[in-house]
Amino acid sequence: MPAAPGPAQPRPFPPPALQDLPPGDARLCLHIERFCRRELGLAPGSHLLLALSGGADSTALAVLLRLLAPRMDLRLSALSVDHGLRPESRGETRRICALCRDLGIPCAMRRADVAAAATAWGCGLEEAGRRVRYALLEEERAALGADWILLGHHAGDLSEDVLLRLTRGAGWPGLAGMAPRDDARHLLRPLLFTAPAALRALLRHLGIRWSEDASNASLDYRRNRLRHEVLPLLRRENPALDRGLATLHRLGSLDGNFWEETLDRALTAHPWQKGMENGAPAITLPRALLAALHPAARLRLYVRACRALGEESRRSEGDSHGQPRAATLLALDAALREGRGNTHFQLPGAVEALVRGGCVRFRVWTY
Amino acid sequence: MPAAPGPAQPRPFPPPALQDLPPGDARLCLHIERFCRRELGLAPGSHLLLALSGGADSTALAVLLRLLAPRMDLRLSALSVDHGLRPESRGETRRICALCRDLGIPCAMRRADVAAAATAWGCGLEEAGRRVRYALLEEERAALGADWILLGHHAGDLSEDVLLRLTRGAGWPGLAGMAPRDDARHLLRPLLFTAPAALRALLRHLGIRWSEDASNASLDYRRNRLRHEVLPLLRRENPALDRGLATLHRLGSLDGNFWEETLDRALTAHPWQKGMENGAPAITLPRALLAALHPAARLRLYVRACRALGEESRRSEGDSHGQPRAATLLALDAALREGRGNTHFQLPGAVEALVRGGCVRFRVWTY
Repeated sequence: MPAAPGPAQPRPFPPPALQDLPPGDARLCLHIERFCRRELGLAPGSHLLLALSGGADSTALAVLLRLLAPRMDLRLSALSVDHGLRPESRGETRRICALCRDLGIPCAMRRADVAAAATAWGCGLEEAGRRVRYALLEEERAALGADWILLGHHAGDLSEDVLLRLTRGAGWPGLAGMAPRDDARHLLRPLLFTAPAALRALLRHLGIRWSEDASNASLDYRRNRLRHEVLPLLRRENPALDRGLATLHRLGSLDGNFWEETLDRALTAHPWQKGMENGAPAITLPRALLAALHPAARLRLYVRACRALGEESRRSEGDSHGQPRAATLLALDAALREGRGNTHFQLPGAVEALVRGGCVRFRVWTY
Repeated sequence: MPAAPGPAQPRPFPPPALQDLPPGDARLCLHIERFCRRELGLAPGSHLLLALSGGADSTALAVLLRLLAPRMDLRLSALSVDHGLRPESRGETRRICALCRDLGIPCAMRRADVAAAATAWGCGLEEAGRRVRYALLEEERAALGADWILLGHHAGDLSEDVLLRLTRGAGWPGLAGMAPRDDARHLLRPLLFTAPAALRALLRHLGIRWSEDASNASLDYRRNRLRHEVLPLLRRENPALDRGLATLHRLGSLDGNFWEETLDRALTAHPWQKGMENGAPAITLPRALLAALHPAARLRLYVRACRALGEESRRSEGDSHGQPRAATLLALDAALREGRGNTHFQLPGAVEALVRGGCVRFRVWTY
């Protein structure tokens, strides 16, 4: 009589190679490897800093990258930022460090006083946490000489981001959501088109625990309200919603690329003028450049000028919050077309636009 | 002792002129007049067929156009379609006819068997009602020799439409929602950027009653679920949501215009080839045309070819349902780029696309 099947054997940890994984998990790894190579252009020999919170997403990021590192010739480091907002956060950070030790990834830990930062900047805890986290990650990346910061955002986060941007009045292609690769900020999001369920399944199969951040359930944050209240209703209408939004994102990337190329050509023919005003950088878009462009292209030129100044002044924070509102861009272009002189417009990153003499001048607003 | 204020005097009906209206309502009229002139390009002397359901929106449309007709030199007719789905619909249609008599607008009434049409076409009641209604309106417009059919869609409908399209996986600029002017289908939507509350306020101030269609409250329809369940949550996050979506719509129109101009230029240099296949129209996009365009422009070319065939074959119904899904367009372009021959794609309006020899051929699928 054949023996009854016994309980599933605990799998070895850390997982030695892809072929030791269940087939679905191995496919997930290969899918992410292909995405990293083809879409993110991740080069062999790259040094990557993983941003780890201890939640399911970033834990899966660490495991997946650990599996792919030998295949893709990657060097890994990790940073965990303890926001110090919840009593359990210190324990979570220690658990991440233990996981990284098991995976053989050197992991640093930084403690941030997010509450103090929020008070100092006069912004909410969520916004302050985001800013502090990105600043510490960039500091660590630069100190290590790493090439990229890797974030654990997945397809569910992308859908939330699209809905957040739609709610906030974003334009196009900004509406299509966060970028999988952000060169200016050295960010990569290798899981951006992966369903969160696949990440949790991988962790369960490997017997790896993660922390559930209680603040993810709190309806005090807009992002969570969209996640828990709005997105389930939309998914009920179309169970393939997230796939649809991922497609929209790809269309947005294509359009973004198209506008960049269109502006590159226009700026080669009619360069913008960079200078300083009151000790802060400024950009003037000359009349000939503006006149050569379709209004739809001019709107994207305004975004580009605004972003160039924001990057120089290092005041522009985050990628979704730094998006100018479409209404402001349309109003700016209407002022230009109607020849309304000396009209001012406030844009993100403390950038101000001024229409004057058929030109548009962008400058950083100095306090 | 001064007399207590009496009840408000009923205002004269029909309202003789704008200056007899409360200031807010007069401003609303002027706003819509400006929109009709500037954005819709409505010419003096036009003959307009109003689509009236008896609901608040189309009742307000009738009143507003009646007020604007002498100022804009417009000739008005109306059609009310009784869908015969609810016992009260016959009474509602009679009430519309009475309103039109008071307003001096000749009104026709048509009865449609929507339930039978839904069975015949194998589609839902909502879809069948829409198709029958538009067909009868177009029949009446042609019979009268009228220039345009006027629809009562307002800013709330536009927001719903954007959300419907987002849910369904629309691309850009289709995602930005229904057009205020649709030349191919002779449709104008003069209220598209007007808040529904302003329309109801106008009717209340004039003492004009409207019918509440009970099916608007039914959660059996996706549109109603988005209206009653999802949009209120998004408006709670941003009370200016509808204004933001109206801005998005304007950005979409600009982009739509940009892509049309870009394709016009490309098609002048490399025309597409029109012909017949199995007795149905077909369009071939030549290799030189496809190679000259950025992928983002090619996607819009596919939409244009698909729409041109749909219009010829008269099978494409409605403006939102006729939008190809972005995923299909991206897959079609990937097949072209990767040189995958003999790959077929199904598009709305019974159009099929076929990649072959570096060309893309669109044809109407014949049964």
